[in-house]
Amino acid sequence: MDLLKKRIQEVGCVVSNGVVKLDAILNHQVDTELVMAMGKQFAERYRPLQPTKVLTVESSGIAIAFATAYELGVPLVFARRKKTPTMDKEVYEERVPSFTKGIVTDIVISANYLNQDDRVVLIDDFIANGDAARGIIRIIDKAGAMLVGVGIAVEKAFQPGGDSIREMGYEVYSLVRIQSLENGQIELE
Amino acid sequence: MDLLKKRIQEVGCVVSNGVVKLDAILNHQVDTELVMAMGKQFAERYRPLQPTKVLTVESSGIAIAFATAYELGVPLVFARRKKTPTMDKEVYEERVPSFTKGIVTDIVISANYLNQDDRVVLIDDFIANGDAARGIIRIIDKAGAMLVGVGIAVEKAFQPGGDSIREMGYEVYSLVRIQSLENGQIELE
Repeated sequence: MDLLKKRIQEVGCVVSNGVVKLDAILNHQVDTELVMAMGKQFAERYRPLQPTKVLTVESSGIAIAFATAYELGVPLVFARRKKTPTMDKEVYEERVPSFTKGIVTDIVISANYLNQDDRVVLIDDFIANGDAARGIIRIIDKAGAMLVGVGIAVEKAFQPGGDSIREMGYEVYSLVRIQSLENGQIELE
Repeated sequence: MDLLKKRIQEVGCVVSNGVVKLDAILNHQVDTELVMAMGKQFAERYRPLQPTKVLTVESSGIAIAFATAYELGVPLVFARRKKTPTMDKEVYEERVPSFTKGIVTDIVISANYLNQDDRVVLIDDFIANGDAARGIIRIIDKAGAMLVGVGIAVEKAFQPGGDSIREMGYEVYSLVRIQSLENGQIELE
């Protein structure tokens, strides 16, 4: 997606060691026009697969996943990073490490909002090692739902996450793939 | 907003003691068509005030604030609930209690994304005691930005948050006001 590539080259900031910061357009400030265009692109790709729901994990994935779900005309469900006090009792829960944050979190989805009739598109902002995505896929499996596609804004192609999901037999569609972040330079494919 | 009132009566769940759960449409699953309609309504109200930015706090406010900001053609900035490892060094930070969650959290906004030229609309899903809103207002003040309006999806009018912001001289516009949650019944104004 050329517009996203252009914006990443303009504002992307290599923090260190495999981490690129997109706080100016995705992860803190959100470029709403760009994100809606990303949602339209994901929706165009996944519409023929007749998804019933878009899933993501709070917080940075919410805007992109909302735009995608709105364009598809389906609900969005965002997994919580921990069980909230008012959450339903029956939940699906998986523990996953976060590459960027360096911590382990639980991701939780209420059983009320995911079931065996659902055809799910999983949307997220980044994929690095793929732990969050694999956690969500385990939850989708537990719920008996079907994963029809994985849409990622920015795949760090030098890390194994995207390919690990492809090896599970799922299609991963990334709007932009980063080839390398070496020497503080963002190299896109 | 009649559509939101109708949906709250259909799916709202009184948990206890002043807490109503809207996990089916806002706080876990998101009714994307409803939320986009809410964003359009906020945008219509605030467009004449020429805002430059929409602010909210992660996570439940993000979808509504994104829809509003998209309709206004401005960026969204979502405050973080804690400083992330990759966040900019210069930040505005306030400690606020959460009524629903029963915990204290920090809300943090990078100084890069809020400044004295900004005319800010603050959007959030609920207002109860107003601690989060007042925390954001202190951050807006510190940044030298101007708050031009506070848009709330659901105001719990039997709690003091909304009026506390009005008494500070700001306009609070709530799409729905809940009069009472007594006896497990949702009474709307």
